[in-house]
Amino acid sequence: MGLKEDSLKLHEENKGKLETKSKIKIENQHDLSLAYTPGVAYVCNEIEKDKDKAYQYTSKSNMVAVITDGSAVLGLGNIGPYGAIPVMEGKSILLKELAGVDSIPICLKTQDVEEIIKTCKYLEPTLGAINLEDISAPRCVEIERRLIKEMEIPVFHDDQHGTSIIVAAAFLNIQRFTKRNLKDFTLVISGTGAAGSQVARMLKKIGIGKIYAYDITGVIDKNKYDSYNFLIKELLDDGIYDTPITHDNTLASILKGADAFVGVSAPNLVNKEMVKSMNENPIIFAMANPNPEISYEDAIDAGAYIVGSGRSDYPNQINNVLAFPGLFKGALSVRASKINEEMKLAAAYAISNIIDDNELRKDYIVPLAFDKRVVPQVAKAVADAAIKTGVSKLYK
Amino acid sequence: MGLKEDSLKLHEENKGKLETKSKIKIENQHDLSLAYTPGVAYVCNEIEKDKDKAYQYTSKSNMVAVITDGSAVLGLGNIGPYGAIPVMEGKSILLKELAGVDSIPICLKTQDVEEIIKTCKYLEPTLGAINLEDISAPRCVEIERRLIKEMEIPVFHDDQHGTSIIVAAAFLNIQRFTKRNLKDFTLVISGTGAAGSQVARMLKKIGIGKIYAYDITGVIDKNKYDSYNFLIKELLDDGIYDTPITHDNTLASILKGADAFVGVSAPNLVNKEMVKSMNENPIIFAMANPNPEISYEDAIDAGAYIVGSGRSDYPNQINNVLAFPGLFKGALSVRASKINEEMKLAAAYAISNIIDDNELRKDYIVPLAFDKRVVPQVAKAVADAAIKTGVSKLYK
Repeated sequence: MGLKEDSLKLHEENKGKLETKSKIKIENQHDLSLAYTPGVAYVCNEIEKDKDKAYQYTSKSNMVAVITDGSAVLGLGNIGPYGAIPVMEGKSILLKELAGVDSIPICLKTQDVEEIIKTCKYLEPTLGAINLEDISAPRCVEIERRLIKEMEIPVFHDDQHGTSIIVAAAFLNIQRFTKRNLKDFTLVISGTGAAGSQVARMLKKIGIGKIYAYDITGVIDKNKYDSYNFLIKELLDDGIYDTPITHDNTLASILKGADAFVGVSAPNLVNKEMVKSMNENPIIFAMANPNPEISYEDAIDAGAYIVGSGRSDYPNQINNVLAFPGLFKGALSVRASKINEEMKLAAAYAISNIIDDNELRKDYIVPLAFDKRVVPQVAKAVADAAIKTGVSKLYK
Repeated sequence: MGLKEDSLKLHEENKGKLETKSKIKIENQHDLSLAYTPGVAYVCNEIEKDKDKAYQYTSKSNMVAVITDGSAVLGLGNIGPYGAIPVMEGKSILLKELAGVDSIPICLKTQDVEEIIKTCKYLEPTLGAINLEDISAPRCVEIERRLIKEMEIPVFHDDQHGTSIIVAAAFLNIQRFTKRNLKDFTLVISGTGAAGSQVARMLKKIGIGKIYAYDITGVIDKNKYDSYNFLIKELLDDGIYDTPITHDNTLASILKGADAFVGVSAPNLVNKEMVKSMNENPIIFAMANPNPEISYEDAIDAGAYIVGSGRSDYPNQINNVLAFPGLFKGALSVRASKINEEMKLAAAYAISNIIDDNELRKDYIVPLAFDKRVVPQVAKAVADAAIKTGVSKLYK
């Protein structure tokens, strides 16, 4: 059978992918009197007096909600909250299977930004953290920012940050492997949405010298400042995007002489000629999924030195599975109030450091998705960073 | 150690009572490609085209949310959503352990009726049913009614209906055991809130002749109609509450000569003199918890024939655990769109029929909470009633 049939069969035979489980046996009146009435009343009283005790006596400390409105699901677009369920269940079981983190999928029957924000806040008591997922840009940015400000638990939108963490890990390893300083890199990024913005921010943070950006409007240029949305304006304001000295508003014109290309945009925007026009040993991460900005074969054929993609059937896969399980595990383990930039950066370094200097290869710049060392090392690094930056509520 | 210490220890050692679990192993890229990207996209597409397929391909068909706002938790009152978590987790694990039904606890950080209604509706896509829990009256009545009308999945407020189903089962067995016809019973109910109203409705439905009601305002009397809230007015309108011919607005005055007393109200409202003033062989179900309207010992001492309570340390415990697990299992098994009156009545008959005629005793009128026959028989009866009344979306 093919992938479609196999996947449908797997989902149908199991009636979905997630179930709940009691940590406690309930077989007789005595069990009931401890776990439920009347004994549970004492536990309720303790938490009523100090709501932080919910971390001590309930499942809150290890419980993540994976929340979407179904407005931007995978590459499928706005398929709504019902169509999104299998993806959210998938994310939930990955959190459990890879990191031991409990998680419930929530697919909201509203796409109104204010209603989504309110609902997430109403759901806070039983949750240790929120993973926002597959919410369309720029709404996702507003929702995440507001929730980070207005909630006491970590809120993390994986589509914005997951890719950026792993791309950053990749470029840290490219620096080690090529022995070239990232300061000397001119990098072109295609895509200025929620993911692209965060990738650019993270790459600048790890030291990339110049970043030129491109999107459906053409080359991002500070001289066109007033025409941009708030996200692009912010990145120009913050000095993340650089403006090329000359360009003719085409992707080709800014790729000429560039050292690296990162695509989080659309299929087939890059051709072999463009790759050939880049600096020698060009680096290509073409992550539009499933059809990349340029195919692996074409990129290699045109002389690309290191190639990465979002696909599991090619080398150097940028797979979010490398980041979010360890990130949540680490944040929850020290009861972090936020997932801040330092924690994301720590995750990037931890992922990059999985591969030793002498193991690095052109086609092994990024660890494999199922490398068992990844989750614990990311979790440890993230927990340490949370403590160091003072956002852990458990350790100072 | 005592109950308090044991219960706190159990909750702390396990870090709460509920966890999530994957139904599927995720150990390599192949597993990932079926359960998550890229294979999951095919499943999403199927559900996008027909949202009912969520029942086929996701965990929705067996997933209940136990939802509260923490406004009326156990006997503890309005302790808020954090203090309520241990109770909701308890309910969730009971659903799983007793009936195999998956369930997530949700404790909402709002007590606004409209916001609670909206939030429940937003949460619908991943849920097979909603168990409302520990929401104060009369708000709970409005919330449940609105949600039943406005949602496509069953919504059931256990505090209203659970007790009523089991009390009805008890009286069906009292009829069998005493060989007295319920038509000839005059029953006094103390408490006219959400639970009391439903107990009265259910008792009238199984045939109790006359029901006099009493609450904090005194004896319910149709001559005081305009002074009552909507709930009491409805029960007077529907002929559920009867007005005693004479009374002096005291509980004592309407207990005189009555056959049965049912209390869902407050401790110590009934004394031995009142019991002695009832008809011979009086029946007393005093369910205020943990301190009943009259103690078991006092009731027996005053000549009560059959006594029941909400407590597990006395005979004839009216324990909601007898009803809700089987009720949800049954409703979910036939994909019922509602839990209607016929289904609740079917549950009451199923619970009563667990005990054969020759097994019935004064102190064994209600099945034991952990009788393994209860859940499957309730589920079967509820499923059959759903099909018969046309609310099953699977069977006609």
